Amino acid sequence: MIVVVKPNTKEEDIQRLIKMIETQGVKIHYSKGIDHTILGIVGDTTLVDVAKIRSNQIVENVLRVQEPYKKANRLFHPDDTIIEVNGRKVGEGTISIIAGPCSVESEEQIVSIAKSVKQSGATFLRGGAFKPRSSPYAFQGMGYEGLELLKIARKATGLPIVSELMSLEQLPAFEDVDIIQVGARNMQNFILLRELGKIDKPILLKRGLCATMQEFLMSAEYIMKEGNDKVILCERGIRTFETATRNTLDLSCVPVLKKKSHLPIIIDPSHGTGLSWTVEALSKAAIAVGADGVMIEVHNNPEEALCDGAQSITPTQFDSIMKTLKKYAEIENKVM
Amino acid sequence: MIVVVKPNTKEEDIQRLIKMIETQGVKIHYSKGIDHTILGIVGDTTLVDVAKIRSNQIVENVLRVQEPYKKANRLFHPDDTIIEVNGRKVGEGTISIIAGPCSVESEEQIVSIAKSVKQSGATFLRGGAFKPRSSPYAFQGMGYEGLELLKIARKATGLPIVSELMSLEQLPAFEDVDIIQVGARNMQNFILLRELGKIDKPILLKRGLCATMQEFLMSAEYIMKEGNDKVILCERGIRTFETATRNTLDLSCVPVLKKKSHLPIIIDPSHGTGLSWTVEALSKAAIAVGADGVMIEVHNNPEEALCDGAQSITPTQFDSIMKTLKKYAEIENKVM
Amino acid sequence: MIVVVKPNTKEEDIQRLIKMIETQGVKIHYSKGIDHTILGIVGDTTLVDVAKIRSNQIVENVLRVQEPYKKANRLFHPDDTIIEVNGRKVGEGTISIIAGPCSVESEEQIVSIAKSVKQSGATFLRGGAFKPRSSPYAFQGMGYEGLELLKIARKATGLPIVSELMSLEQLPAFEDVDIIQVGARNMQNFILLRELGKIDKPILLKRGLCATMQEFLMSAEYIMKEGNDKVILCERGIRTFETATRNTLDLSCVPVLKKKSHLPIIIDPSHGTGLSWTVEALSKAAIAVGADGVMIEVHNNPEEALCDGAQSITPTQFDSIMKTLKKYAEIENKVM
Amino acid sequence: MIVVVKPNTKEEDIQRLIKMIETQGVKIHYSKGIDHTILGIVGDTTLVDVAKIRSNQIVENVLRVQEPYKKANRLFHPDDTIIEVNGRKVGEGTISIIAGPCSVESEEQIVSIAKSVKQSGATFLRGGAFKPRSSPYAFQGMGYEGLELLKIARKATGLPIVSELMSLEQLPAFEDVDIIQVGARNMQNFILLRELGKIDKPILLKRGLCATMQEFLMSAEYIMKEGNDKVILCERGIRTFETATRNTLDLSCVPVLKKKSHLPIIIDPSHGTGLSWTVEALSKAAIAVGADGVMIEVHNNPEEALCDGAQSITPTQFDSIMKTLKKYAEIENKVM
Repeated sequence: MIVVVKPNTKEEDIQRLIKMIETQGVKIHYSKGIDHTILGIVGDTTLVDVAKIRSNQIVENVLRVQEPYKKANRLFHPDDTIIEVNGRKVGEGTISIIAGPCSVESEEQIVSIAKSVKQSGATFLRGGAFKPRSSPYAFQGMGYEGLELLKIARKATGLPIVSELMSLEQLPAFEDVDIIQVGARNMQNFILLRELGKIDKPILLKRGLCATMQEFLMSAEYIMKEGNDKVILCERGIRTFETATRNTLDLSCVPVLKKKSHLPIIIDPSHGTGLSWTVEALSKAAIAVGADGVMIEVHNNPEEALCDGAQSITPTQFDSIMKTLKKYAEIENKVM
Repeated sequence: MIVVVKPNTKEEDIQRLIKMIETQGVKIHYSKGIDHTILGIVGDTTLVDVAKIRSNQIVENVLRVQEPYKKANRLFHPDDTIIEVNGRKVGEGTISIIAGPCSVESEEQIVSIAKSVKQSGATFLRGGAFKPRSSPYAFQGMGYEGLELLKIARKATGLPIVSELMSLEQLPAFEDVDIIQVGARNMQNFILLRELGKIDKPILLKRGLCATMQEFLMSAEYIMKEGNDKVILCERGIRTFETATRNTLDLSCVPVLKKKSHLPIIIDPSHGTGLSWTVEALSKAAIAVGADGVMIEVHNNPEEALCDGAQSITPTQFDSIMKTLKKYAEIENKVM
Repeated sequence: MIVVVKPNTKEEDIQRLIKMIETQGVKIHYSKGIDHTILGIVGDTTLVDVAKIRSNQIVENVLRVQEPYKKANRLFHPDDTIIEVNGRKVGEGTISIIAGPCSVESEEQIVSIAKSVKQSGATFLRGGAFKPRSSPYAFQGMGYEGLELLKIARKATGLPIVSELMSLEQLPAFEDVDIIQVGARNMQNFILLRELGKIDKPILLKRGLCATMQEFLMSAEYIMKEGNDKVILCERGIRTFETATRNTLDLSCVPVLKKKSHLPIIIDPSHGTGLSWTVEALSKAAIAVGADGVMIEVHNNPEEALCDGAQSITPTQFDSIMKTLKKYAEIENKVM
Repeated sequence: MIVVVKPNTKEEDIQRLIKMIETQGVKIHYSKGIDHTILGIVGDTTLVDVAKIRSNQIVENVLRVQEPYKKANRLFHPDDTIIEVNGRKVGEGTISIIAGPCSVESEEQIVSIAKSVKQSGATFLRGGAFKPRSSPYAFQGMGYEGLELLKIARKATGLPIVSELMSLEQLPAFEDVDIIQVGARNMQNFILLRELGKIDKPILLKRGLCATMQEFLMSAEYIMKEGNDKVILCERGIRTFETATRNTLDLSCVPVLKKKSHLPIIIDPSHGTGLSWTVEALSKAAIAVGADGVMIEVHNNPEEALCDGAQSITPTQFDSIMKTLKKYAEIENKVM
């Protein structure tokens, strides 16, 4: 980290600043220039509070040279993280396909969709039991019952299950869920993240609607810092000025996150645009851009879906998309 | 709500759609045009799921005519909501000044700041005990001890206290806090909102960094639907492409929210830009634009603040700002 | 177009509104509902001014059912537009590769890069002669001399050339340029667009940094309305809150624009992120998502490039990328 | 400017980089740290190409310490710029009120509005002759005839006139216009800016919809570099995710631009939100936040306005707003 001191600052003020910074467990390399004095901070700067230094009146600017995360940082963990879930791998070399309805609606629905997506080649079953809805009047999911139905569908197909946890008190009910999803709106629910860091279970962490990639990795760091390093990143669209799509799917985050971090990345095109007819094109692009898989909403009857039908595809469409995606996985030399 | 049916749709499909919509407790006014058939939905459309209708293949488009919130809607509650807190009013006719440090750091600090801001005319004391920080390595607040220190400062000054609740399990500790703040990152933590709707205490709801005004009011609706109608809205800057300021303070939300809703609105210029030297200008503008108050970070020693020092002003600066703000409150014919 | 009239409006006011709308060359289908009266506008609504209708005090809302563009609209032109440029096709079925330096710097530079990219399989040569730079102190391009050097490179390789026109008075000098590029900052320079509509030459229209897809197509419409229907759309990244990439490349615009319009779409990953090491991944994704080609910055010595070196790749890197892209074009059944 | 060199870089590569930078007319202060070597660039860094340095493989990061503009920079011009236009002052100490219709529609219309706004206290008359419209089918303004009508209105009232120039070839017709407006979409039409820098006439430069404040000032710099330092900045709303308002009026830009630059700043609330009923509140806020004036759309019959009626107020409303604004100018100790 580089601290640029304002011109004409008194030496004693600089010395006071140096002492303040050094209390944060780092060392200072002092360099007096013609206009500006520059302080190079040496050591573990993840613990250094940039905002605090910047608020000092003699500081012109602060430049981070190293990223503020460690566990999620490829620099300190050059190899790709590969996460094993019930014998299936998520991460480099494998394309994971997570499919299923936005929300679990009945045993018949979830079991039938599960069988169908499994036959088409999906590797995980998704299904929402607790649904974050912007309106308190909208369907909020089946809750605990939904989780039970997911387990029945898992039993019927062998597909590991992925479901969203909305609040800490639901955690006990997720003990037998294979991958816990943290939704976009909870990406900076730090207390939740911290607790999920204390369990031994893969976490599918969705990027917040207006989270920068750095904030996204910092949220992964919250989980990893506590000991759980099984974090799967999931890009699901960011909020921009564009209104033709519900969100703007940021596929360019894949090469950038892959460079900065060793964690696997899954793309969710269904939420990315909210338009079912874009799912095929964007799923292909997700594999081409280097993602480790896609998460696709599949519903047997999108028009009757209790939530987000406009972005769901039918099992028949899913089957056709899967055939195409396999060709892409092949060029990328990945198992699918 | 208006549903536009695609051209050349079979009559039986339209009838099926009508039946589906009517199961949601509303009536349909049917109008056959030359190109398009139009269905006018009559009744309480807050319960109607727009996304579901839009996902129907015969639907060209859906237009909401009424807002999806009721309790927060000025249409159904024309008078301004005025909230009483320990004998102080928040809402139309009064300018509330909430001042205090980003985080409580010690008894001496909080009591000294409380006394100082009270003398300058502040009406509420703010202080963070639980701090949401994007880095897990940053100072996370004093926690429960911080709440106790806030109460000591209240006792010393008589100022009601405002503090942020980060998670449901902290709720019991907030029983004796006068206004519970919900932070921007929790604006769509719907389970938290629902529980806060069941208590009888004012909630200061901060707008999410990328929340539209409609989403903001829907979050207020989550609280109000459960019975707690003491919601104070707080604009604290939205995320845009601009980087010169930390966020973009959206002052234009004040007249718009005032038109759509009857709830009081407070402006937080300190978080709005993250730049302490803009606080005075933006506080004046907040009063001029019609806000019901401002929330200002004041720290006795910003450079040593454990968080967000760059946006805090000193008690002396606060005192000077207050003198100016009083002139603005006067022109607006408001008590301050 | 659907106009929703406010409840309790007097019949005479509605009749006055109808007359006003009908002067715009359309007919009204009148429908009296229980709460709201609805006016369906029938006819060519591209000429109808939505803002004007919306400003009428008795109007609750206006809903566009049809897009406001005609020539660029797939509805009125179901077949894909394929543009021929010197015997090369741009559009459905073909992957066009436009490669070359950000700016032309010397004859040696441009001829050498042209030869190199041609050998790797590029189909067009790009090179900036007039450069829009945010600083007046930055290199502004070689100007007319740069255009001449481009022609020399075309002669040496046979590659058609693409270059950016910044202002109308430069137009005569572009007579012998094969494709005229309109930069992102000029996407809504309507007078320029109108004049380009009067010539018979392909226009590569770049999407503005904060242009919605609809605005993008409206700018294409400006050109096409005057008679020139050879418009090639080019997505080059939009501006969002993310700072890890210079812009956010919006690949989801491809399926959406393809559905709404018949015009070819090219992706520019180099400007999209500003990071040369993301170009390969994003180029693959561009083909996978259905784009008709990519535009890639190639420089023999990126570190010495007079502009935008950080986003340029070397001829060797380009050659390697081209080998990969061919595999993707193959799966997509496209000529490359 | 500070250049951070990557760890473990060879000394000869550093020396090569230093030489490259020094060819740009600056000197290097070399400082070898423990991890990183740091190069402090001393001298006039406005001419240094940051992108070029950043693209060098041995460079970790570049930190600008000084702003990239000079003429617009308060650092080099501490006093506020005050621009005289026909005896009226624009700038610190004065509140300028620019009022008039979005577009000139007839002699009767513009003269009548001019008289009316003058009587209410407006100091400048605005009126569009050339209108940038996103649809080629929308009314494009009266053109040259509109300018003539503006001059008639000026003669009738004495109010100096402000009108938008859309393209260079219109420049001769603007010789007798008092202030030339550059629209948001032309903020980065650099060739236009450069030519406007060569004339001696005040330029009202509107901020682009997605222009950062730095880009805004760089566009002012384009004009000033050529010799014309009569630049008036105008904030008119930026594009964000919010859809309740047409744009998001960024009032926080006022204190920031005032700190960075000495140029006057005018606020345009009418375009800022597109909602006429927010104009009063935002105009008050504009004065309170420190702007040097406001630009307000006034139309005698907003419902019949040929463009942007939804954001126009009537002369009667304008008169009432003016009375209120005067109170605000008074507290701010400004002439109005």
